[in-house]
Amino acid sequence: MTRERESDAELRILVAGGAGFIGSHLCRRLHAEGHDVIALDSLITGSRENVRELLGSPRFTLIERDAVRGFTEVVRGRIDRVYNLACPASPVHYQMDPIHTTLTSVLGTLNCLRLAERWGARCLLTSTSEVYGDPEVHPQREDYRGNVSSTGPRACYDEGKRCAESLVMDYRRTRGVSVRIARIFNTYGPNMAVDDGRVVSNFIVQALRGEPLTVYGDGSQTRSLCYVDDLVEGLIGLMERSPVPGPINLGNPEELSVLEIAERVIAAVGRGRIVRRPKPEDDPRRRKPDIGAAERAFGFQPRVPFDEGLRATVAYFERKLKTALLLSAG
Amino acid sequence: MTRERESDAELRILVAGGAGFIGSHLCRRLHAEGHDVIALDSLITGSRENVRELLGSPRFTLIERDAVRGFTEVVRGRIDRVYNLACPASPVHYQMDPIHTTLTSVLGTLNCLRLAERWGARCLLTSTSEVYGDPEVHPQREDYRGNVSSTGPRACYDEGKRCAESLVMDYRRTRGVSVRIARIFNTYGPNMAVDDGRVVSNFIVQALRGEPLTVYGDGSQTRSLCYVDDLVEGLIGLMERSPVPGPINLGNPEELSVLEIAERVIAAVGRGRIVRRPKPEDDPRRRKPDIGAAERAFGFQPRVPFDEGLRATVAYFERKLKTALLLSAG
Repeated sequence: MTRERESDAELRILVAGGAGFIGSHLCRRLHAEGHDVIALDSLITGSRENVRELLGSPRFTLIERDAVRGFTEVVRGRIDRVYNLACPASPVHYQMDPIHTTLTSVLGTLNCLRLAERWGARCLLTSTSEVYGDPEVHPQREDYRGNVSSTGPRACYDEGKRCAESLVMDYRRTRGVSVRIARIFNTYGPNMAVDDGRVVSNFIVQALRGEPLTVYGDGSQTRSLCYVDDLVEGLIGLMERSPVPGPINLGNPEELSVLEIAERVIAAVGRGRIVRRPKPEDDPRRRKPDIGAAERAFGFQPRVPFDEGLRATVAYFERKLKTALLLSAG
Repeated sequence: MTRERESDAELRILVAGGAGFIGSHLCRRLHAEGHDVIALDSLITGSRENVRELLGSPRFTLIERDAVRGFTEVVRGRIDRVYNLACPASPVHYQMDPIHTTLTSVLGTLNCLRLAERWGARCLLTSTSEVYGDPEVHPQREDYRGNVSSTGPRACYDEGKRCAESLVMDYRRTRGVSVRIARIFNTYGPNMAVDDGRVVSNFIVQALRGEPLTVYGDGSQTRSLCYVDDLVEGLIGLMERSPVPGPINLGNPEELSVLEIAERVIAAVGRGRIVRRPKPEDDPRRRKPDIGAAERAFGFQPRVPFDEGLRATVAYFERKLKTALLLSAG
């Protein structure tokens, strides 16, 4: 801890998963604050495109590397902060290779912790609201122990992250590494993958393509959606200003039914209609963060209203789909 | 699956953790049935002593190897069955190096699955009643999702095993490996380590040494204790005769309060008195298996009454402590 540097200095920061959806926003923000940023990404679900505007900067490096492999030898020089965002987070992605998902969560986190221990750096794990599974209490507080199936198709992600949390806390207890754990709730915004498969991106892409918006079950299941800028603010707050390691929920407690989200997407895009499909196994009925702990610890408060975040996200997907169309036509 | 061999043939069986408490009984039993047995053990909590009577047999091999490391290259020739019992299971042992405990559970299981996949073998994971944490329902059925803290001092074991379960099921779903998962409840018997630290061995060792028997809290917390021979019967039944992969509870549903266990140990040893100590963090209040699934799947039924199992265990610890005394005097 004695070697730990303050955040008002220029820091060297590693962001595992730095070319992913949230990771790329975090990199941009940290870079804008004057820090040296090293993004590590397997580019399986992340993309070079997400960090294109940073690639020319002498204070930004992108290393293509799977976090499952150790990376001590490819990351040169001192590191002051390690953010671990390396893991596919959408069911469609994390279920493509569930064994790799588990290993990404567990070994990716282990490798981040090893790097942090080596440099006396602080290490933040982005865990997930999925550690609460299909929760029986609402909103979810950090001391709720969850309702997770350890053997179902979502377990690779949920249990991988729970296991990663336990590793992080053991590094703190037994090795004295300074750690933080964020439990991220649903987040949306530019740089989401077109095939992300989660509710906001699904609906926007469907509406833009003139396809019907797919609502699973009766659509009464809720999501609490946080705009990515608010989430990044929370991650940095937790890393730099929190007196406690967490786990701490980060998200937006405003609860919307899936049906309502569909309707507001239709309004934002200006077209679209809804179709219903059966609810898949293990799909959470409801998810709403209690963010009291983050508020108390470092004044976290999401500020971007849903309709405003939605407009920026629709604009991003419009560009993205247009480019894709041009490329496929070209 | 086409390569899978029947259990009435002579099988080549790998037992990871084969020199441990339960592992050594399993090895002895499988060896007695005529199979070739390869025990793999780090000898951190297991011991050569536990399998001494097998060491001269041409059908038994002990490989000293940490399951965290891959072992495909040290295990030669065909393997038909893989039992994974490689993990310290008592809190005092698994909390000594919690990071290693997590990795033993996750990577040890991964390595067993890889070996099983390579040979078309069936792979059985010994998971634990600890996946239920501090349960809110009694008895615990396999579909109970548990009440586990992912950040407490027991998480290395509990979450490690939950994560291992998810890996096993993903190997089944995505690679077609034939798998079984046992959730083992409290087990006792000869070959427990003197410093195991769990209730039965603690009480017996304390009574034999003329020390007071330590009861944590008011002693009303319960344990359901299964004699090791019954448990081994259950493991083989699950591996060879179960039509379902599990997870399946194995244990003895007879519930005893910790206070009652202390009193029966005092009766079996013929001396001893009780002292009370504060209850440690995260200590389960109650644990009782519902073994209906194991009964239906392969006729599992524990047969050894507690007082009978206790006599055999007391006799073992008497020999063990006498030897230790002779050695220290010698």
